[in-house]
Amino acid sequence: MGSLFGKKLRVMTFGESHGPAVGVVVEGVPAGLPLREEDLQRELDRRRPGQSPVSSPRQERDRVEILSGVFEGRTTGAPLCLMVRNEGADPSAYEQVKTKPRPGHADLTYLLKYGHVDWRGGGRSSGRETVGRVAAGAVAKLLLSSCGVEVLGHTLEAAGVRVEREVEDREIRENAERNPMRCADPEVARRMEEAVLEAARQGDSTGGVVEVRAVGVPPGLGDPVFDKLDADIAHAMMSIGGVKAVEIGEGTRFARMRGSEANDPIVLREGRITTLTNKAGGILGGISVGTPIVVRLTVKPTPSISLPQRTVDLERGEETVVELRGRFDPNLCPRVVPVAEAMLALVLADHLLLSGKLPPDRWGERG
Amino acid sequence: MGSLFGKKLRVMTFGESHGPAVGVVVEGVPAGLPLREEDLQRELDRRRPGQSPVSSPRQERDRVEILSGVFEGRTTGAPLCLMVRNEGADPSAYEQVKTKPRPGHADLTYLLKYGHVDWRGGGRSSGRETVGRVAAGAVAKLLLSSCGVEVLGHTLEAAGVRVEREVEDREIRENAERNPMRCADPEVARRMEEAVLEAARQGDSTGGVVEVRAVGVPPGLGDPVFDKLDADIAHAMMSIGGVKAVEIGEGTRFARMRGSEANDPIVLREGRITTLTNKAGGILGGISVGTPIVVRLTVKPTPSISLPQRTVDLERGEETVVELRGRFDPNLCPRVVPVAEAMLALVLADHLLLSGKLPPDRWGERG
Amino acid sequence: MGSLFGKKLRVMTFGESHGPAVGVVVEGVPAGLPLREEDLQRELDRRRPGQSPVSSPRQERDRVEILSGVFEGRTTGAPLCLMVRNEGADPSAYEQVKTKPRPGHADLTYLLKYGHVDWRGGGRSSGRETVGRVAAGAVAKLLLSSCGVEVLGHTLEAAGVRVEREVEDREIRENAERNPMRCADPEVARRMEEAVLEAARQGDSTGGVVEVRAVGVPPGLGDPVFDKLDADIAHAMMSIGGVKAVEIGEGTRFARMRGSEANDPIVLREGRITTLTNKAGGILGGISVGTPIVVRLTVKPTPSISLPQRTVDLERGEETVVELRGRFDPNLCPRVVPVAEAMLALVLADHLLLSGKLPPDRWGERG
Amino acid sequence: MGSLFGKKLRVMTFGESHGPAVGVVVEGVPAGLPLREEDLQRELDRRRPGQSPVSSPRQERDRVEILSGVFEGRTTGAPLCLMVRNEGADPSAYEQVKTKPRPGHADLTYLLKYGHVDWRGGGRSSGRETVGRVAAGAVAKLLLSSCGVEVLGHTLEAAGVRVEREVEDREIRENAERNPMRCADPEVARRMEEAVLEAARQGDSTGGVVEVRAVGVPPGLGDPVFDKLDADIAHAMMSIGGVKAVEIGEGTRFARMRGSEANDPIVLREGRITTLTNKAGGILGGISVGTPIVVRLTVKPTPSISLPQRTVDLERGEETVVELRGRFDPNLCPRVVPVAEAMLALVLADHLLLSGKLPPDRWGERG
Repeated sequence: MGSLFGKKLRVMTFGESHGPAVGVVVEGVPAGLPLREEDLQRELDRRRPGQSPVSSPRQERDRVEILSGVFEGRTTGAPLCLMVRNEGADPSAYEQVKTKPRPGHADLTYLLKYGHVDWRGGGRSSGRETVGRVAAGAVAKLLLSSCGVEVLGHTLEAAGVRVEREVEDREIRENAERNPMRCADPEVARRMEEAVLEAARQGDSTGGVVEVRAVGVPPGLGDPVFDKLDADIAHAMMSIGGVKAVEIGEGTRFARMRGSEANDPIVLREGRITTLTNKAGGILGGISVGTPIVVRLTVKPTPSISLPQRTVDLERGEETVVELRGRFDPNLCPRVVPVAEAMLALVLADHLLLSGKLPPDRWGERG
Repeated sequence: MGSLFGKKLRVMTFGESHGPAVGVVVEGVPAGLPLREEDLQRELDRRRPGQSPVSSPRQERDRVEILSGVFEGRTTGAPLCLMVRNEGADPSAYEQVKTKPRPGHADLTYLLKYGHVDWRGGGRSSGRETVGRVAAGAVAKLLLSSCGVEVLGHTLEAAGVRVEREVEDREIRENAERNPMRCADPEVARRMEEAVLEAARQGDSTGGVVEVRAVGVPPGLGDPVFDKLDADIAHAMMSIGGVKAVEIGEGTRFARMRGSEANDPIVLREGRITTLTNKAGGILGGISVGTPIVVRLTVKPTPSISLPQRTVDLERGEETVVELRGRFDPNLCPRVVPVAEAMLALVLADHLLLSGKLPPDRWGERG
Repeated sequence: MGSLFGKKLRVMTFGESHGPAVGVVVEGVPAGLPLREEDLQRELDRRRPGQSPVSSPRQERDRVEILSGVFEGRTTGAPLCLMVRNEGADPSAYEQVKTKPRPGHADLTYLLKYGHVDWRGGGRSSGRETVGRVAAGAVAKLLLSSCGVEVLGHTLEAAGVRVEREVEDREIRENAERNPMRCADPEVARRMEEAVLEAARQGDSTGGVVEVRAVGVPPGLGDPVFDKLDADIAHAMMSIGGVKAVEIGEGTRFARMRGSEANDPIVLREGRITTLTNKAGGILGGISVGTPIVVRLTVKPTPSISLPQRTVDLERGEETVVELRGRFDPNLCPRVVPVAEAMLALVLADHLLLSGKLPPDRWGERG
Repeated sequence: MGSLFGKKLRVMTFGESHGPAVGVVVEGVPAGLPLREEDLQRELDRRRPGQSPVSSPRQERDRVEILSGVFEGRTTGAPLCLMVRNEGADPSAYEQVKTKPRPGHADLTYLLKYGHVDWRGGGRSSGRETVGRVAAGAVAKLLLSSCGVEVLGHTLEAAGVRVEREVEDREIRENAERNPMRCADPEVARRMEEAVLEAARQGDSTGGVVEVRAVGVPPGLGDPVFDKLDADIAHAMMSIGGVKAVEIGEGTRFARMRGSEANDPIVLREGRITTLTNKAGGILGGISVGTPIVVRLTVKPTPSISLPQRTVDLERGEETVVELRGRFDPNLCPRVVPVAEAMLALVLADHLLLSGKLPPDRWGERG
């Protein structure tokens, strides 16, 4: 269980960090959508490590191959298999993990569950699993884009440095991809990076907050009770490794509000019913209002740190200390951004299909 | 779509606030579990309004009837249908809602989605839908209890008043049901109640934070990638009306931690591998550690308030002001507590069944 | 597991033969469909026993109650709970079954699976479970009818007597409900009834063949590979108690054909592409052609017979003979007809919704 | 939709006949199962065409690659991606199909559904899609084998030539793989082959009947109502291209039986409750009895034939005649055998996992 997501747009990811390949099968994409490997590669390149001092220096080329579902440059309605070969993985760096589960990682729980650890870099619990999510998310983004929906993500806070003011969509579009922190404010980005690197120099890691938004979302997405749009989003986001809190709209700030502040007044704007403010983050009763969807994720500090940590030696059955070698992402936020965008895109595209706002079989007529 | 939850223990809720009945079908309960209507009634009674000044004075007797799945006092393995008749509902109080969607409610989005509002008290989006969740959750609690798992809930914060210190399980068991706020600290409970009532006297409502825990959870529950235990919990919790943030363990506090603080050291205790602290809230890599599961929900202020609010008159197509009559829950937290417990119980019982730790067909041998 | 059917139009049945009630929750019905209890009652009345010498003389009034999902005479998009109270069930007639599983029944396998038998008339495996199917099917038929699709069923063969010629749709509509065998040919119906009653007089039962058709089905329903329309139909039909074979179109006769006979020529008729013949039964590659869907079910002889049969006494742990008292359906075909129609209607309505040919949220605009 | 099968053991197939690759992701395989590419290759080699005069002379090497889910020769509990590259596919042979849908094929319905035909050899509806099924089925067979369950398949009838007597399991094991028809009786096999080739010489094709059995199946598999074991089997079998009827046990022969013949007497054999005969084909009330599961499929004649056939020219919008070039399988039965075995194995392994008889997470302890 566990590798399937979605109801009408369904994705099944596969692959572990040191196996032959990682990827995803995407099912439910309507026929006729133009799709090239470049469209996917662009998003995968954003996910890759080794691009800056704040991400791990591992080199992964991550060339995606479309194994099925596309004919003459368009989707056929058949499942897409999107595959990336793993390259140059050196599992020897993980030898000691074999017997000493790393604190904060899934090593311990996989061991308790499966009776073994696929100790090569975390196996299935590795961040490499997100290659499949990002590739599938790239397809979802194309579907959304055809409906006028745009998904935007940025790092709102890292290592205690936060963008304290309101961030405009435009700033995310212009700035987030231009700094290693993926922060929408270039000046804050610099301070974030500094704080992140300072902790890294001390052998430690830092946490932060990622925000994702969707603009242009039509009203009426989401279903009552258990398939609420925000419930599906929370599920999607909490399934990303390292995410420990999910907030919609004002999120935890609602705890200290009064109803008169918290409720978004309902108004008419150009003949359309909408809300004056967007504290609800675009969702009421689990259904989209038509205002932007706003989601925030708290990302815990990277569990891999060089400082010594207490653990247990499984072979000897005694407590010990583990010191992890190698270089790690000192802060996960910049790499969570494209994954969170992908997950939001997948949830929204699924609900567009469920709602009938995207035709299930034909994306458009072939010319 | 929307009314089905769970993978192996599946629940489908039905009913709206002013229809003939509300309830749930629960499927996947192993045969042989002793089950009486009293077991369900106890939990339903906790959910009922009208029990204190901080909840709505509506009178609902909520007598549950087991329509199927039980024979000679034990479950048969067949689906349980648990039904509660609606009584004395007076939809006339909702007449004005018919044309004026209430801010903060689902009225607007249901209208946009379905082209109409079942205007009688919110219809399907009403809190009454949770009758089915709580009844199903009561069954899940019995299953959990047979495996030594206990689910506890309390109000951690309301109207800005918070229990600032660590709360012991024992305090929740002893105190939470003894005050109208369901707060584990009797002294804080009094201050919460005061602050809630003060806002209510001003025609306003307040938000808060609910915490639910599960103790005695075996390690190994949860599946990698998308069916992570915390992802399923986030889904379950965010599907509760009024919940706008879900946190696991330290939750949003992880943003400001370093890895060396955030990672729970792995230790041996009485020959068992476990963690020294429980910042992760009992879940690593989406799989239970064996330590308590800790979840916090931010509950927004009750959207129904007596203060005038801006909305749109749908018939006249113009902006207007709505003033809601009647009396409402001034704070939702005490009533969210049993619902959140129910949802956590459902997720855990489902994963116990998925993991094979609960036998799927026979709960125990019949004597 | 087991009580859920459908992908977008989902039904969950509940109830056993001697419990308080039987019924179904139907989810995914678009808002706005006019629905009254009479619409359901008509179909349920067709399913009831006691209506003729060829069905069991048990008296069940089977009054259906709509517990949810309808407001002011139309569906709201919320789940429908359709319930029928069980009346006058006398489980004492089943006392001996308690320790002696009946050959041909589920008694033996339920015992092996659940460790007990809900011995009161078969419990969940009883034909009474089909009340929920027929009620849900009645809703599906209304949805189909709004798209011009009609579902027709009749008994093609019983007790060795078969309608050997082609049966026209018109004959089914006119004749099938007018004779106890539900046979489309009145003259054959008389011979069937005679043969059935003759076997019954000897304490025995007989089998037969039921045919169901759907006319007016649009092309394009069904999905490739595993969700083929015929695969879903086979699933639905084989889930009906007593059905041991499912055939599509020419069915088993294809084994002795050549390709040149078996292939339906593709032709133009009034500008539309269609097939000249309909040997495929309206489905090619798992997707509807637009020609009538034709399905045949082989129904085994009623397992309950008065003749002595070998079984095992569970208490004594020795072989014995069981002689069933009471009166049973001497032939199941007439009662399988409405159930098979219901299942075909459910599959087709589900695929209409999946294909986007029926709008998922709003059946039609409210006046 | 459409490419996902199974509840706990879930498979998602991908790939079309002339794309880069075909394959499957298999999820839910417990950790610890020894698995090598050779185990899969053996089954894939049985599925390959070009092995005898009664199958198409296309040359496909079909080398399988395990892309994920195996570490040090054993499954890890993570999804398996099993991939086969397509080789040497020459779509030019299909040029005329582009505008002239072939009778009996999915060309027409795919066109009606998706607005285009992936005309290269049938695309997703091609028999090549079954590569994924057979690879997944090979994994399921290994799981079954570890529980003492064996799946056997053979051609019972082809081109009107049938094995009229009872076939023993032993005969299938010894003979079926030793003749091109996969017939359990060598003498009948020769007559079948002759009849098949005679029709082929006339440019025509023939149909037949395939039987699959499972022996060693424990009692208690299957769930009541909609997830009956026979319902899931019918679904699985009818999803195989060319299958038009599915029978369980005596199947269509039940129509002419009486209850006293049809019911299998319940007896004690070596202290175990079982049935004296096995007319029910190993399933009662949708749940396995413990006796062999017996399933028969009617396979229609290969729709591709060289004889001229009526169709429509889509470009000209007029009726025309198509004459298919190339060489085709003159009879599909021998190639359906391994696919039907794979599907039966998948259904049974899924129900073994659902029932808890196979542990969901660990197949066995690692040494």
